[in-house]
Amino acid sequence: MFWNDLKHIREGSPLVHNITNFVVMNLTANALLAVGASPVMAHAAEEVEEMAGLASALVINIGTLSGPWVDAMFLAGRAARRKGIPIILDPVGAGATAYRTDTALRMLAEIPPAILRGNASEIRALARHEGGTRGVDAAHAVESVLDDAKDLSRRHGCVVTVSGPTDLIVHGDRILRVHNGSPLMARVTGMGCTATAITGAFAAVNPDAFRAAAGAMALMGTAGEMAAARAGGPGSFPAAFLDALAGIREEDVLGRVRVEG
Amino acid sequence: MFWNDLKHIREGSPLVHNITNFVVMNLTANALLAVGASPVMAHAAEEVEEMAGLASALVINIGTLSGPWVDAMFLAGRAARRKGIPIILDPVGAGATAYRTDTALRMLAEIPPAILRGNASEIRALARHEGGTRGVDAAHAVESVLDDAKDLSRRHGCVVTVSGPTDLIVHGDRILRVHNGSPLMARVTGMGCTATAITGAFAAVNPDAFRAAAGAMALMGTAGEMAAARAGGPGSFPAAFLDALAGIREEDVLGRVRVEG
Amino acid sequence: MFWNDLKHIREGSPLVHNITNFVVMNLTANALLAVGASPVMAHAAEEVEEMAGLASALVINIGTLSGPWVDAMFLAGRAARRKGIPIILDPVGAGATAYRTDTALRMLAEIPPAILRGNASEIRALARHEGGTRGVDAAHAVESVLDDAKDLSRRHGCVVTVSGPTDLIVHGDRILRVHNGSPLMARVTGMGCTATAITGAFAAVNPDAFRAAAGAMALMGTAGEMAAARAGGPGSFPAAFLDALAGIREEDVLGRVRVEG
Repeated sequence: MFWNDLKHIREGSPLVHNITNFVVMNLTANALLAVGASPVMAHAAEEVEEMAGLASALVINIGTLSGPWVDAMFLAGRAARRKGIPIILDPVGAGATAYRTDTALRMLAEIPPAILRGNASEIRALARHEGGTRGVDAAHAVESVLDDAKDLSRRHGCVVTVSGPTDLIVHGDRILRVHNGSPLMARVTGMGCTATAITGAFAAVNPDAFRAAAGAMALMGTAGEMAAARAGGPGSFPAAFLDALAGIREEDVLGRVRVEG
Repeated sequence: MFWNDLKHIREGSPLVHNITNFVVMNLTANALLAVGASPVMAHAAEEVEEMAGLASALVINIGTLSGPWVDAMFLAGRAARRKGIPIILDPVGAGATAYRTDTALRMLAEIPPAILRGNASEIRALARHEGGTRGVDAAHAVESVLDDAKDLSRRHGCVVTVSGPTDLIVHGDRILRVHNGSPLMARVTGMGCTATAITGAFAAVNPDAFRAAAGAMALMGTAGEMAAARAGGPGSFPAAFLDALAGIREEDVLGRVRVEG
Repeated sequence: MFWNDLKHIREGSPLVHNITNFVVMNLTANALLAVGASPVMAHAAEEVEEMAGLASALVINIGTLSGPWVDAMFLAGRAARRKGIPIILDPVGAGATAYRTDTALRMLAEIPPAILRGNASEIRALARHEGGTRGVDAAHAVESVLDDAKDLSRRHGCVVTVSGPTDLIVHGDRILRVHNGSPLMARVTGMGCTATAITGAFAAVNPDAFRAAAGAMALMGTAGEMAAARAGGPGSFPAAFLDALAGIREEDVLGRVRVEG
């Protein structure tokens, strides 16, 4: 289902502008390169509007947020909306601290993303304006937040991706489930952020945000399975995952993708 | 000796709040995940007190310090002390510049850590308030700073870990030596910082800071030996090390840990 | 050709002070360790002059620049010039935004580097004061910017390295081409920044900046070929590359280096 989009990414090499966190910058830049996109990281107020103006998608990730970075995210977000490119928002740790929840809610309101991608705890916290996710963990089951995802999708007019053992992709009443993936993916830092970045690459080439979000998660899960078959543990997983992303062929996908809905 | 603590980390998945440096964030987050802990990186003044309030240990690492980060470290440190969770301090580069030495000394005085972990040059610089460690290298032999470590331990009431080919763990007159490890560990950036982060995970589950510090270094050294047997060089070492941390079983440890004292 | 310099780096372990970007800090620190140098990352105004004063070379990389970092780069740059150690400048993304082009041009004028290393698009943008490189990609062919490189070299009295499938090293009318390398190197983030960092290590031991720049690129390309022969894709490439850098022997180099000019 994602093959055409991946082909377009590989052929067009869309520029994806990331304002993301320190932990995952290297991994997500490499993941974007591996799928064929062209990543750029830029966060200075002096240039984020110009950079967003060059890009085909803007990925905002609040994983290690601070005042100046949040300001730049809003500047870039407004530039992205003026230009009409999709914003993909990753509300890392929403619910853990008021600062994260409030910042993410403010972004949903003021620079509404095309796609919001989080884990179950983050989506639940944003839908209910509540705390308690205990850091960046996904303490809640994906299915238990389906109604929260629907609420957020309707309220903000965006696609909501809830990632977990099964990924939910929700747009109003449209629901899709991706059953691909590997338990190893939860044992490596930044795999959620990587899903968000790759969602940015898909949204850069596919104007249908629902299909872009679903395709990105199906590719993540498929490459994750391929990598898990080769990795000796969470340490060797990221390299195997990037190799899989870069090398995946149409025949690797056939019969492997398990999407429902 | 560290098996029970590791089991408790794997079962309880304690949240470890890190305010650390840009170079090692990804590696230390993955190392904490690999031992079973739950890492979070957060450094904004707006949220560090709240985040420290959710955590079971606070790791402070001054490897790429700057004004706003140091301010946040103090805020988080005071919150950690109010809550009664252990602080683990890594004074990266103390002795190289006055800014690093002064900042680390101020932390020892104002937000005294349960455990201070550094290399011989850093420990010596802090004990003698002197410079000359030439960056983040360990130019001095571990045993030559035993008295410095004792001084610091007594002065600040903390456990002092001096890492090197043999690690020293010192609490007043109690001394323990860990002889495990591999020379490859000194050829990879961030292995010291990783030791500090893992010390945080051990301190989160073991109120005896001396045993926590020793257990963390014994696990580091044991996993380091297992990884060195599989790695083709310093480049492939980190992945092998994380795989070893994640996969280590009780039988891997038996007869392998060489602790003295 | 680079063997003697590499031997001197391995024996002397020169301290290389890096003020670089968040994406590549870990990789470039590990690359410097792998060649035998001693990396330090420090960017606070409070310490960069003191740190540069301890170092044998200063590497400035504007990949994720912002106001306070740029200020620190100038402070460190002036300290490096006072001390007489070489500055190596990587103008990441020059041409993509005015902020990057202007900052790099200001650095060329006020803290002239011994060596400027960029891709073709960056070198072209700096020579012509123009935009349009579309992020950090190298959209232009290396040979097409030979005159731009000569112009920049004459104007600023520095060596200019243009990296690409073939690397150009230019100093006024002296030109050297390095034909080593692997296409995989363009599919991994930070290989250009790594070339810059390693150029810093070579410049730290070789006062002839032209030969230092050429040796660094020849080592990069040679290690890149060795790594490509072992890597399963861009994901497993960085570890293989660092292993190659660390393990390379004189016999690996003989008959392999393809330098022309």
